[in-house]
Amino acid sequence: MTKIVIIGGVAGGASAAARARRLSEEAEIIMFERGEFVSFANCGLPYHIGGDITERSNLLLQTPESFLARFNVDVRTMSEVISIDKDNKSVTIKNVLDNSEYTESYDFLVLSPGAGPIVPPIPGIQNPITHSLRNIPDMDKILNTIRMNRPEHATVVGGGFIGLEMMEAFHQLGIKTTLVELADQVMTPVDREMAGFAHAEIKEKGVDLRLGVALEAVEYVEEPHLANIESGETDEHPHIQGHLNLSLSNGDTIKTEILVMAIGVRPEIQLARQAGLKIGDLGGIWTAPTMQTSNPSIYAVGDAIEEADFITGNPTIVPLAGPANRQGRMAADNMFGREQTYQGTQGTAICKIFDLAVASTGKNEKTLKREGIPFKKIYVHTASHASYYPGAEIVSFKMLYCPDTKKILGAQAAGKDGVDKRIDIMAVAQRAGMTIDQLQHLELTYAPPFGSAKDVINQAAFVANNIENGDSRAIHFDELDTLTDDQLILDVRTPMEIQNFGTLDGAINIPVDELRPRMSELPKDKEIIILCAVGLRGNVAYRQLVNNGYKARNLIGGYRTLMFSKA
Amino acid sequence: MTKIVIIGGVAGGASAAARARRLSEEAEIIMFERGEFVSFANCGLPYHIGGDITERSNLLLQTPESFLARFNVDVRTMSEVISIDKDNKSVTIKNVLDNSEYTESYDFLVLSPGAGPIVPPIPGIQNPITHSLRNIPDMDKILNTIRMNRPEHATVVGGGFIGLEMMEAFHQLGIKTTLVELADQVMTPVDREMAGFAHAEIKEKGVDLRLGVALEAVEYVEEPHLANIESGETDEHPHIQGHLNLSLSNGDTIKTEILVMAIGVRPEIQLARQAGLKIGDLGGIWTAPTMQTSNPSIYAVGDAIEEADFITGNPTIVPLAGPANRQGRMAADNMFGREQTYQGTQGTAICKIFDLAVASTGKNEKTLKREGIPFKKIYVHTASHASYYPGAEIVSFKMLYCPDTKKILGAQAAGKDGVDKRIDIMAVAQRAGMTIDQLQHLELTYAPPFGSAKDVINQAAFVANNIENGDSRAIHFDELDTLTDDQLILDVRTPMEIQNFGTLDGAINIPVDELRPRMSELPKDKEIIILCAVGLRGNVAYRQLVNNGYKARNLIGGYRTLMFSKA
Repeated sequence: MTKIVIIGGVAGGASAAARARRLSEEAEIIMFERGEFVSFANCGLPYHIGGDITERSNLLLQTPESFLARFNVDVRTMSEVISIDKDNKSVTIKNVLDNSEYTESYDFLVLSPGAGPIVPPIPGIQNPITHSLRNIPDMDKILNTIRMNRPEHATVVGGGFIGLEMMEAFHQLGIKTTLVELADQVMTPVDREMAGFAHAEIKEKGVDLRLGVALEAVEYVEEPHLANIESGETDEHPHIQGHLNLSLSNGDTIKTEILVMAIGVRPEIQLARQAGLKIGDLGGIWTAPTMQTSNPSIYAVGDAIEEADFITGNPTIVPLAGPANRQGRMAADNMFGREQTYQGTQGTAICKIFDLAVASTGKNEKTLKREGIPFKKIYVHTASHASYYPGAEIVSFKMLYCPDTKKILGAQAAGKDGVDKRIDIMAVAQRAGMTIDQLQHLELTYAPPFGSAKDVINQAAFVANNIENGDSRAIHFDELDTLTDDQLILDVRTPMEIQNFGTLDGAINIPVDELRPRMSELPKDKEIIILCAVGLRGNVAYRQLVNNGYKARNLIGGYRTLMFSKA
Repeated sequence: MTKIVIIGGVAGGASAAARARRLSEEAEIIMFERGEFVSFANCGLPYHIGGDITERSNLLLQTPESFLARFNVDVRTMSEVISIDKDNKSVTIKNVLDNSEYTESYDFLVLSPGAGPIVPPIPGIQNPITHSLRNIPDMDKILNTIRMNRPEHATVVGGGFIGLEMMEAFHQLGIKTTLVELADQVMTPVDREMAGFAHAEIKEKGVDLRLGVALEAVEYVEEPHLANIESGETDEHPHIQGHLNLSLSNGDTIKTEILVMAIGVRPEIQLARQAGLKIGDLGGIWTAPTMQTSNPSIYAVGDAIEEADFITGNPTIVPLAGPANRQGRMAADNMFGREQTYQGTQGTAICKIFDLAVASTGKNEKTLKREGIPFKKIYVHTASHASYYPGAEIVSFKMLYCPDTKKILGAQAAGKDGVDKRIDIMAVAQRAGMTIDQLQHLELTYAPPFGSAKDVINQAAFVANNIENGDSRAIHFDELDTLTDDQLILDVRTPMEIQNFGTLDGAINIPVDELRPRMSELPKDKEIIILCAVGLRGNVAYRQLVNNGYKARNLIGGYRTLMFSKA
């Protein structure tokens, strides 16, 4: 009888347990979880804090009892595995309630320990109103601070998924919120100019956004707690009142009443390291495509592991729920001889930021540059569905592709409607190895409430193919600072648009619909840099100019990409 | 100088004109349109009638003037091309205002005549309050009838896209509506059981749905028009009052005050036939993948043509806006030597039916059976996003795949959220030639407001792969009528669910979570047909039974597929 021991009862671990049981009725399956809860909705924690998910119980997807009844899995919570003896195939478990220890043998071991929040060694950071958010008890502590102290101001450090979601949760509770981020952008999966859409939305909602600054010190100032004094309550639930004085790297200080640290997570590898399993260069547990670690009887899945990047095949760490769940299932498959191999991680991700969604798949420009991978990029800004039908919103879309193979390297999008759909389309196309030429032919659902006859993705493909076929010459927003005297900016928008939104210094204005009769106003010996709102009219103007013997380049993504790159 | 003549100024024709100009500044481009309007939003017409699109002017995307200013295209409306002389490369045009005629030569001709509504030869159908809907004047006539006659009851004949949209428009205007459809289902692109979701939604909204009946006769009963009598108005806008008595094939009669015929469209091929161009067996203009007709100087695009089906390569007619637009662009490309070939039509389509969306791509089961193409099918019903986050709706999803190659043959979905996204994902995956195995690995956007860690599509892939790998044996809703004495139905839902929703005659109830201890209640010599709500718990039960030596099959899609197949 096969005995399977699983360490960690969320996402990957729970998926492995359920799949293993479906494959074998005989196997003995034990799942250890050092916390109180298994299979909880960790992605839902910020939304319960913010009030979107009203019932805490909705976050508890399974219980040890339900797991036993349905999957005959022996779930042991409050049980921390403290060591692995891989030679004897056994683990030692500590019962965290009474500190007793015992061992269990295994035939297969699955490590799904996850990743813990990074808490940097900032002076004063250990205090009762500074939190991180990983699990249900963390959430309960934050909720308790909010309920008891009624903070008027919250600070979130870190502009990743959890940081952004906590920012929104605080804002939704009517708490003034400051978001502090060390980088010059939030949401690092997207490039700086695409993050601009997030910055604009965050500021528009009244959040105090501080980019490019670090939290350097925290001072905790305890205050008499009014509720305690008034009620004479004892400290069954200690009501810790007080505030924090935060010192930032730019000299600013912030007085705040609750602080959430969300600067990132780090794989939990102590157990794997102690067991002598191979740790990758990035600091995660090394895994083969079978999800086996360096010891073939031990599998590892989820946020703690290094897996292959879909594009480069190099190791990467992508702490996301989708890969974790599929890896857990796959580990179970392989224990029972199903020979599944993990096909690499694209890092497809999405974040709701108030009314906006920001999403990406594949490589971003920063990473491509860092890894020396050749790429080209394009931008389009196109309505999420037929613009004449109510509710259409602009999808701002960036695509990166390989100039040699024409394959998709990555895609990013921001907007208030249809962003998830467009990135999903790109994630599928990228995984299938499609080229930008093939993207033109995509036949997507169209009716006015849902799309356009030429979808965002078709449009993006047209733009990229125009460039590759020589039908268009591109200039990008990040090249405008280095124009020479041999170049001239032509703004082809209407005077009304320019009046409302501004234009670039020195730009000549000829609306596209007047360009043919007025073309002689332009010099043939200069390169004309064409600017419009999103790049579409610019392309029409470009074709007119080039077909009339002018030298020209079209600003891809137009004024909209340029403006939001600075937001 | 290349001279391009385009017949038809909507969708395909307008796309061809704009693209041709971008490729050549010198070309002379003339676009003839027999109506008053070019480049109008024909897909938006029902939504203006229903009031979602408030401004009629929003439907007019371009005017002859705007086309001239931007693209230097000579647009001639009210100009019907009445013949083509392909030997001399010229066309004869009739000015429909004064009936004058003249000829224009061409180097390349583009036919984009579209498809006209089929008006069957039903007695009495020619009357002032029976309409079809193809263009702006048709829409204006319908609006005029509604405004002047204030109908209390409307009838729509035909449950295709336009019929369903008109049904919704009337309903939205507070007009009691009957929808008559000859087939046993609306929306023929999906299979009967998936159309059940549409039927349920239509009935739920109070529309009188009549399936499987034909309109056989129409009697127009003129009535004195109150408004005319009261106001003494002259007949500048004739106010035609009256009602219709409709006779249906089942003997029913309906009294109605406005009738819209939307039983389908037929390619406009008179001009092509007169010119001696090849007409396909399906009755559309034959085209090569270059969009050339049998005469290489004449291209044809859009609703009037036959093009290749993506799966079979056989000719098909798919009158949809997406293909039309891309074909128009491609025709222009090829005139200028760009060598584009059309990659076949999947028929990806979507329809909003009140709060529901119903969509499909690729082949449906009916067509696969008719064409003798081997297939297998699966169903899943899964939340559109994390079920614990507000607003999640069930996506009911059907996938058809090839049992040999494991490639996707088609997909259909119905639901109130996320349907367009799932069918787009499948349209991309199908076009890329992905297999059901590859679908398991799709890495789609996930955050609780947008998706699930295991998306609908991943789940569908798991179900299909379980079947193909022998980890599951399927039974389908349409096989339940022919069970034998050697089979036994096991319902693994809770007694509460069975009480609320019912079950099948003779079914034994053992909730899945009680199955292990109670398994001995079941006979080992019968095949156990497992039933649950959607097929998920059924799979858990199936694995338990089979791993314990029972014979079993799982009802794929569960009770939900079965119930809606009858709706």
